[in-house]
Amino acid sequence: MPDTDALETLRAALEVFARERDWEVFHTPKNLAMALSVEAAELLECFQWLTPEESAAPDAKRRLEIEHEMADVLLYLIRLADCLDIDLRAVALRKLEINRAKYPAERVRGQSRKYHEYDEYEPGDGG
Amino acid sequence: MPDTDALETLRAALEVFARERDWEVFHTPKNLAMALSVEAAELLECFQWLTPEESAAPDAKRRLEIEHEMADVLLYLIRLADCLDIDLRAVALRKLEINRAKYPAERVRGQSRKYHEYDEYEPGDGG
Amino acid sequence: MPDTDALETLRAALEVFARERDWEVFHTPKNLAMALSVEAAELLECFQWLTPEESAAPDAKRRLEIEHEMADVLLYLIRLADCLDIDLRAVALRKLEINRAKYPAERVRGQSRKYHEYDEYEPGDGG
Amino acid sequence: MPDTDALETLRAALEVFARERDWEVFHTPKNLAMALSVEAAELLECFQWLTPEESAAPDAKRRLEIEHEMADVLLYLIRLADCLDIDLRAVALRKLEINRAKYPAERVRGQSRKYHEYDEYEPGDGG
Repeated sequence: MPDTDALETLRAALEVFARERDWEVFHTPKNLAMALSVEAAELLECFQWLTPEESAAPDAKRRLEIEHEMADVLLYLIRLADCLDIDLRAVALRKLEINRAKYPAERVRGQSRKYHEYDEYEPGDGG
Repeated sequence: MPDTDALETLRAALEVFARERDWEVFHTPKNLAMALSVEAAELLECFQWLTPEESAAPDAKRRLEIEHEMADVLLYLIRLADCLDIDLRAVALRKLEINRAKYPAERVRGQSRKYHEYDEYEPGDGG
Repeated sequence: MPDTDALETLRAALEVFARERDWEVFHTPKNLAMALSVEAAELLECFQWLTPEESAAPDAKRRLEIEHEMADVLLYLIRLADCLDIDLRAVALRKLEINRAKYPAERVRGQSRKYHEYDEYEPGDGG
Repeated sequence: MPDTDALETLRAALEVFARERDWEVFHTPKNLAMALSVEAAELLECFQWLTPEESAAPDAKRRLEIEHEMADVLLYLIRLADCLDIDLRAVALRKLEINRAKYPAERVRGQSRKYHEYDEYEPGDGG
C-alpha cells in the first residue's frame, strides 16, 4: 500500500502545475470536460481498427500510447473534480453501489443490455 | 488518509462486479475504451450550453449528474487499466513528469497553445 | 445548384475508395461509428481552449484544420450510412421535423434547456 | 436526383430553426462542436456492446435510434459549417482527394494502419 492516496497525490500536483503556469483561467469546468472528452477519444483511437482480440494484446508501442492517453484522462478527471470540489473516491464508491442495484447479478448474468431494457422483468425473478 | 488506495479499492471491486455478472466477455479493451468515451461525452453534455462562468457553479441537480458521469468515467478507466494490467497511478505520475517537461512554466505562463506550437522557441529562452 | 447531390456524389466516391483499398473488412458499422466519434473529438479539439468569441473567428491555420476535421466527420457519416443502407437526407429531414415538434418556437425562445426539462409546461401555454 | 442539394436544403432549414427560437446566441462554433461530439458519442453508444457482426445487422428499434443519432450529427455539422461560412461539399471533396494521396491503393491494400505508420516506405515503392 502506498503512503498516500494516488488521487490525492495527483490532485495536489495538478493544482501546483496549473498555478505555476497561470492556467487556472483556462481551467473552467466546461473546458476541462472538453479536454477530458478529447483525451478519451485519443484513447479510443488506439483501439480503432483492432479486432476485439487484438485490442487485448497491444504491442509495446501501442501499449505506451494507451498508457499515456489513459493517464491524460485521469489527470483531467482529477483536475475537474478539484475545480468543482468533488471527492472522486466518494462518488465512485457511491456510483458502484448504484450500479450493483441497477444490475443485480442473478438477472443480468452474461447479458449486456442497458438496465432500462430489463424493465419488463420483476426484480428478483431470476431474469 | 484512507486505509487503502482508492484506485486499488475500486479496481478490486470492479473485478468482482464483472465476474459476478459474467461480463468479462464484453470487457474487451476496445469495448471498454468505447464505453469510457461515451461516458466522457455524457459528462460533456452536462456543460454543453452553459457559459464558462455557469459551468463553474452548477446547481444541485446538475452537480449530481456531473458526479455520476465523472464516477462512470473513473470506473471504466480503472476497469480498462486492470484488463490491460496497467498501473494507473504509475502512468499518471510519469505523464505528469512528461507534461512538466513539455510545458515549462516560464515559457507557457498564461497561454494555452499546444506544446508543438511552441516549437519556434528555444528551450529555456524564457518564451 | 450543383448537378448532383453532394451526399450521393460523396457516397459513391467513398464506396470506390474503400473497395480499391480492400478496406471493406474494416468498415463494420461499429468501427465506422468509432472513427466518426474520434474525428468529432479532433474537431472539438480545434476549439478547446478558445473563448466562445474566439471560436467564431478562427485564424487561417486553424480554419483549415476545422475544415479538414469537419470533412472527415462527414465522410465517415456518409460511409456509415451507406454500409447500413440509410438515406441520410431522408432521416435528417425527418429528424428536423421531430425537433420542430419537440421545441416549439413560442415555448423555448432564447432558452437552451433540453426538451424534457420543459415537461412542467403544457404545450401551447406560451412557456 | 433531387431538385435541390440536401446539404443546402438542410442548411437553410436549420438557419430558420435557430432564428425562430433565438438560439443563435447559443450557437457559437465552440458549443456546436461540443454538441456534435455528444451526438457522435450517442451514435457510438448504439454499437457499444455489439460484436462487429451484430453491428452490421441492427434490429428495427436500434436501427431507428441509429438513424436519429446520425441525423443529429449531420444537422449539427451543417449548422456549424453555416456559422463558420464553410462549404461542406467543397471541403469534403477536397479532403477525399487528400486521403487518396495519403493512402495510395497499391500500398495500403487490406491494411488499416494510419498513414504516418507507412513512413518507412518510399512513395511509389509499391508497399
